Amino acid sequence: MDHLHSEGFQKVTKVDDALRIFIGAIHWPPPKTESVILSEALGRVLGEDIVSRQFMPAVARSVMDGYAVRSADIANASEEHPITLEVTGESRIGEACRTVVKAGQAVTVATGSMIPPGSDGVVMVEKTQNLSGHKIGVCAPIVSGQNISKKGEDLSPGTPVLMKGQRLRSQDLGILRALNFVKVRVVRRPRIGIISTGNELVKSPGKRNVGKVVDLNRQILSAMVKELGAEPMDLGISRDDESGITRILRKALRSCDIILITAGSSVGKKDLVPECINRLGKPGMLVHGVAMRPSLPTGLAVVDGKPILSLPGFPVSAMIAFRVFGRPLIGRIMGTDDPVEPVVKAILKERVSGPEGFRTFVRVILRRTTEGLVAEPLKLQRSSVLMSMVAANGIVTIPENVEAFDAGQEVDVTVIGEIVS
Amino acid sequence: MDHLHSEGFQKVTKVDDALRIFIGAIHWPPPKTESVILSEALGRVLGEDIVSRQFMPAVARSVMDGYAVRSADIANASEEHPITLEVTGESRIGEACRTVVKAGQAVTVATGSMIPPGSDGVVMVEKTQNLSGHKIGVCAPIVSGQNISKKGEDLSPGTPVLMKGQRLRSQDLGILRALNFVKVRVVRRPRIGIISTGNELVKSPGKRNVGKVVDLNRQILSAMVKELGAEPMDLGISRDDESGITRILRKALRSCDIILITAGSSVGKKDLVPECINRLGKPGMLVHGVAMRPSLPTGLAVVDGKPILSLPGFPVSAMIAFRVFGRPLIGRIMGTDDPVEPVVKAILKERVSGPEGFRTFVRVILRRTTEGLVAEPLKLQRSSVLMSMVAANGIVTIPENVEAFDAGQEVDVTVIGEIVS
Repeated sequence: MDHLHSEGFQKVTKVDDALRIFIGAIHWPPPKTESVILSEALGRVLGEDIVSRQFMPAVARSVMDGYAVRSADIANASEEHPITLEVTGESRIGEACRTVVKAGQAVTVATGSMIPPGSDGVVMVEKTQNLSGHKIGVCAPIVSGQNISKKGEDLSPGTPVLMKGQRLRSQDLGILRALNFVKVRVVRRPRIGIISTGNELVKSPGKRNVGKVVDLNRQILSAMVKELGAEPMDLGISRDDESGITRILRKALRSCDIILITAGSSVGKKDLVPECINRLGKPGMLVHGVAMRPSLPTGLAVVDGKPILSLPGFPVSAMIAFRVFGRPLIGRIMGTDDPVEPVVKAILKERVSGPEGFRTFVRVILRRTTEGLVAEPLKLQRSSVLMSMVAANGIVTIPENVEAFDAGQEVDVTVIGEIVS
Repeated sequence: MDHLHSEGFQKVTKVDDALRIFIGAIHWPPPKTESVILSEALGRVLGEDIVSRQFMPAVARSVMDGYAVRSADIANASEEHPITLEVTGESRIGEACRTVVKAGQAVTVATGSMIPPGSDGVVMVEKTQNLSGHKIGVCAPIVSGQNISKKGEDLSPGTPVLMKGQRLRSQDLGILRALNFVKVRVVRRPRIGIISTGNELVKSPGKRNVGKVVDLNRQILSAMVKELGAEPMDLGISRDDESGITRILRKALRSCDIILITAGSSVGKKDLVPECINRLGKPGMLVHGVAMRPSLPTGLAVVDGKPILSLPGFPVSAMIAFRVFGRPLIGRIMGTDDPVEPVVKAILKERVSGPEGFRTFVRVILRRTTEGLVAEPLKLQRSSVLMSMVAANGIVTIPENVEAFDAGQEVDVTVIGEIVS
C-alpha cells in the first residue's frame, strides 16, 4: 500500500471486512426492554412481537352513507326500473343495531354504522331515490358484501401486527391503540459513552487560547447518537496521556454499552488510544486503519465484550466513520436495522476520484436544475474543513473498485440535508 | 365526474390545485422564534442566518504528523538524495509556537499543531529519516502550503454558514459550537390543534361498547405532527352536533396555529364540519372534495387567517391527506421545506390502477430480492383497513394522467418503513 494513502499504517482493512470483523467479535445479548406509554413511543424500537387478540372491526360496518339491504332484492335494479324497498329503521353511528332486514326492506346507515342483521350489503345514497311513505327506489344493484367493512377485515385474533425490532411509526401507534395498548414494550436506549482526547482541546474558546481548539466532536456525536434513538453520555475531554485516557475508558466500560473515543488514533507519538485500549482487556484493537477517505485512522476494538469505536479527531472524519461503523453497531445492539436514508440520482458537475482500493466519501451540494438534480463536489474536501459537511446536502460514495466518477456522469447521492432549488 | 368516484361531491379539486388555492389563501407572518441551547436544537428549524465573525482555524495548523519546513529548502529532495535539515524545536499540540523556521531548519509538528512562523508546509514523518544530532533527512519535496490547514481555511469573518429555515443537523450544531454559540435562535414549534368528531368514537374500548370505535386519529396525527417538529395539542373528541363542533373549533382557533379536524366531512346528513367551519368565519371552506384516493372527502379551509384541515375519518385517509396537505402546510408556517423522503425504484408485482383524473396512493410492501427491490401492493387497499398502512413500508403514487401501472413495471416508491430482505 502506498504511503501516501496509508499514512504510516502497516496494514489497512477494507470497510466491509472491518465491519464484518467488528460485528463478528461482539457477543450480542438480546436487547433490554422497557415499557413506555404510546405517546412517548414514536421512533422507539419495538421490544416484542405484537399479535392481534381481537377482531377489528369488532362488528361489520358500513363504509358509505346509504341503505343496508339484501343484495338479492335489488339484483335487477336500474335507473329505468328502480326497485322499491321499505325503510324500516336506522342504524345510528355509535349504537348497536338489532333491526333485522327482511326481504323488501332497507335500513338507513351512515359511514361507520353497524350493519344490521339480515342485510348483506350497502347501497350508496346517491344510487337511491326518496319515495313517499318511508320508501326508497334503488337504481343499481350491488354485490353481496359491497360497501361493508366485514367483522375482522382489518384484524382477527392471531393476525401478526408488528414485529420485534421495528421502529414504531405513527400508524403503528394507531394500531396499538386499537388493540387497547396504553403502554408498549420497547428496546431500552443503549448508553453511548462519548470521549474526546487531545491536549489542544478546550470546551469553549478563550481570549488567550492561541493554539487551542474548541472540541466539537462531543456535540456532534451526541446529536448523531440521539438521532438513532440511543442515549449519549458525554464523558468529557481527556488529555493525551496514558493514565487520563485509561481512567476515562475504564469509567466508560463500567457505565456504557458502546464507547466512542475521538482522536489519538493515527500513527504518531501522541497516538495513545489504541495502546490504552489494548492494555485494558481482550481482544482489544481488532482493526486499526480502514481503507476509506476520509477516516483512515479509524480503530475498531472490543474490550470485555464492549465495542469501542476509536474515531479520527477531525469532526468530518469522526462523522463519516460514525456513519459507516457507529450506525450499524447501534442498530445491531438495539436489534433493529439502520433507518433507510434517501438516495437520489444526480448528474455530477465535476470529476471526483479517490485512492485505489479505498472507499471515498465526497461531500456535494445537490441542486435542482432544469436538467434535473446536479451534484457539485465541495471545493475543499479535506477532513479538517467542517464546512465540507455543513455546506453539503449529499454524499457521493466512490467504491473501492472505482477510480473516479466523471463530470456529467449520473451517480447515486445519499441525501444528508434539504435540497434547495 | 362519475358518481362512483365523487361520492356525491358536486365538484372535486385536483391535488395540486387544492394545495395552491389553500396555500395562496393563507397570510404567512414571519415565523416566531425562540432561543434554545445547542444540545436541544437538533432537528429544529433555524430562525436566523448565521454568518461567521471569526477565522477557523484561528491559526494555521498541521494536518499531518511530521516537520514544518520551508518548501524551497527541499525542492530537490528524493529517496536517493535526501536533504538534511536541523530540527530546532517542536510545535506542541494545544500550545502557541514562536520558534521561527529559518533556511535549513525544521520544527517537529503533530496533527493539529500550530504552524511555526517561517515555514510554509509540512513534510510527513514517513517521508523523513532520523539522523544523529537533531537532524533529519527529507526524502521528498512538498509544495508550498502542503499538509497545512490555513488560517481561515474553514471559515473567515463574513462567510455565510447556515441559512434561516434550515433544519439543524449534527454538523450544524458542531459549527455553531465552533462559532462560540451556546444557544441558537430557532423557529418556535407551531401549535397544531387536533380534533376528532363522531358519535361512534370512544377513547378506549369498553365491554358494552357494541357499535363504538376507539378513536385512533388523535394518536396518529399527534405523532405525525411531532415528527415534523411541531407541537400537537389534543383537543379531544366532539360528538356530531353543531354546537359541540363549533365550540371546539372556536377553542382551537384561539389557541392553535393550525387545526386538524377529522371525520364529518363527507356528504351525508351528519357531515357537519364544513357547515360549522363556514359559519365560523371567512373565507371558510376553500376546497371540499379532492381528486385523490384515498382521502376524497378532504376539506381545506381558512378562518380568521388560520388554516383548518378537515381530514377524512378513516385513519388511513387522514394519514394520506395529512401527508399531502398537512406536511407542506406545517413546513410553510415554520419557514422550511418538507423533509426529503427516501424514494426507491422497485418492480411492481401486480397491476395497480386508480380512477381517471385522481391521484391514487397505493400502499405496498417493498422487499429485497435477487432481482432487486419488488413492490407488492397490499390486498386490501380500502381506507377502512388500517393494516394497509401498518403492513406497508412503501407508497406508490399513481398520477392523475396515468390509468394504471402494470405488473413488472419499474415504479418510484416512497419509503415509509424499514425494508426487510
